[in-house]
Amino acid sequence: MATVDATTESGKDAAAPPAPPRAGGFPGADLALRLLLFASTLAGLVVLATAKQTVLFPVTLPQLPQVIFVSMPAKFKDSPALIYLLVALCVTCFYSLLTALGSLKLISGSSTPKTLFLLLLLDVFYAAVMASATGSGGGVAWIGLKGNSHTRWNKICDTYGKFCRHIGGAVFLGLVASIVLVLLAALNAYSLYRRSRR
Amino acid sequence: MATVDATTESGKDAAAPPAPPRAGGFPGADLALRLLLFASTLAGLVVLATAKQTVLFPVTLPQLPQVIFVSMPAKFKDSPALIYLLVALCVTCFYSLLTALGSLKLISGSSTPKTLFLLLLLDVFYAAVMASATGSGGGVAWIGLKGNSHTRWNKICDTYGKFCRHIGGAVFLGLVASIVLVLLAALNAYSLYRRSRR
Repeated sequence: MATVDATTESGKDAAAPPAPPRAGGFPGADLALRLLLFASTLAGLVVLATAKQTVLFPVTLPQLPQVIFVSMPAKFKDSPALIYLLVALCVTCFYSLLTALGSLKLISGSSTPKTLFLLLLLDVFYAAVMASATGSGGGVAWIGLKGNSHTRWNKICDTYGKFCRHIGGAVFLGLVASIVLVLLAALNAYSLYRRSRR
Repeated sequence: MATVDATTESGKDAAAPPAPPRAGGFPGADLALRLLLFASTLAGLVVLATAKQTVLFPVTLPQLPQVIFVSMPAKFKDSPALIYLLVALCVTCFYSLLTALGSLKLISGSSTPKTLFLLLLLDVFYAAVMASATGSGGGVAWIGLKGNSHTRWNKICDTYGKFCRHIGGAVFLGLVASIVLVLLAALNAYSLYRRSRR
């Protein structure tokens, strides 16, 4: 019954004074958050994919009179955790694009509780995936930044500064994406809650 | 209006043949999942807190005739990522205990959409926290297991086998807890969805 009400009501949302809650809850906020999600994951993808720096290390060999330089590149592909972060950012970016279109459907007012429920499930799933990828990338980035004297893992960020700034930026954008996904899940949950009270 | 209906209906849920969906959705499954969450986080806590191993390394000094042994302990406190995992497991364990009591209330039938909504919000939040802690612990554990030749971070699990088994176990239990939290969020979302269709 509630579904029929929502779809018939949805066309006219102009100036009815104390209007009942809309079908999609806050479709404008939903769309804005999904666009923010898209922007942050896309930026994270670009920042992470371009994280590459080559440093020349001077090496002296007793056989040779002059100093030779050995180039040592650092790239995100060297760490499985950063590859996981890239894949998660990529998949979430694609997801945010698709659901932004779904959100436009919400704005047009044709959302059903089923749409909200499915979006909520997907948001929760992607929030967990993004959070775990951010955690794993962040854990590795932290070792790169601070090192670990107990395991004798030396920090690399004093040498590979630019590389580390890219990784740090990607982890930060991953964190933003995770928070946005949690907020989206909360928003959809609230929309379902409002409908369930009616 | 709907809220009043729900609370008055909730007392009598005995044997009306084609009964409408219950208030709490699947309170039995909810309680079972919360107990599983409690068990996994408690086990993870114990396994992680007891992750300690001391290895004796033989050292030969030119000044001394005999070989001396240097003890080098490995404990979870040496890594910020593992401390984060411990804190997340601890907080989630406490949360699972509290909400298992809340779930008993669901079984008694006195749940409102508001309870479901708040539980859903908390489940999503804790799922994100647990997932990020699992990711960060897993990222560090992976370096300990495999090392990283590019950054010259050597693996430590060939020496500290028992320690690594504990860390791996804690990360696995953290993963189980994250999955259970996502399932709990999905279950609560479904309960809200069922109510919103009525």
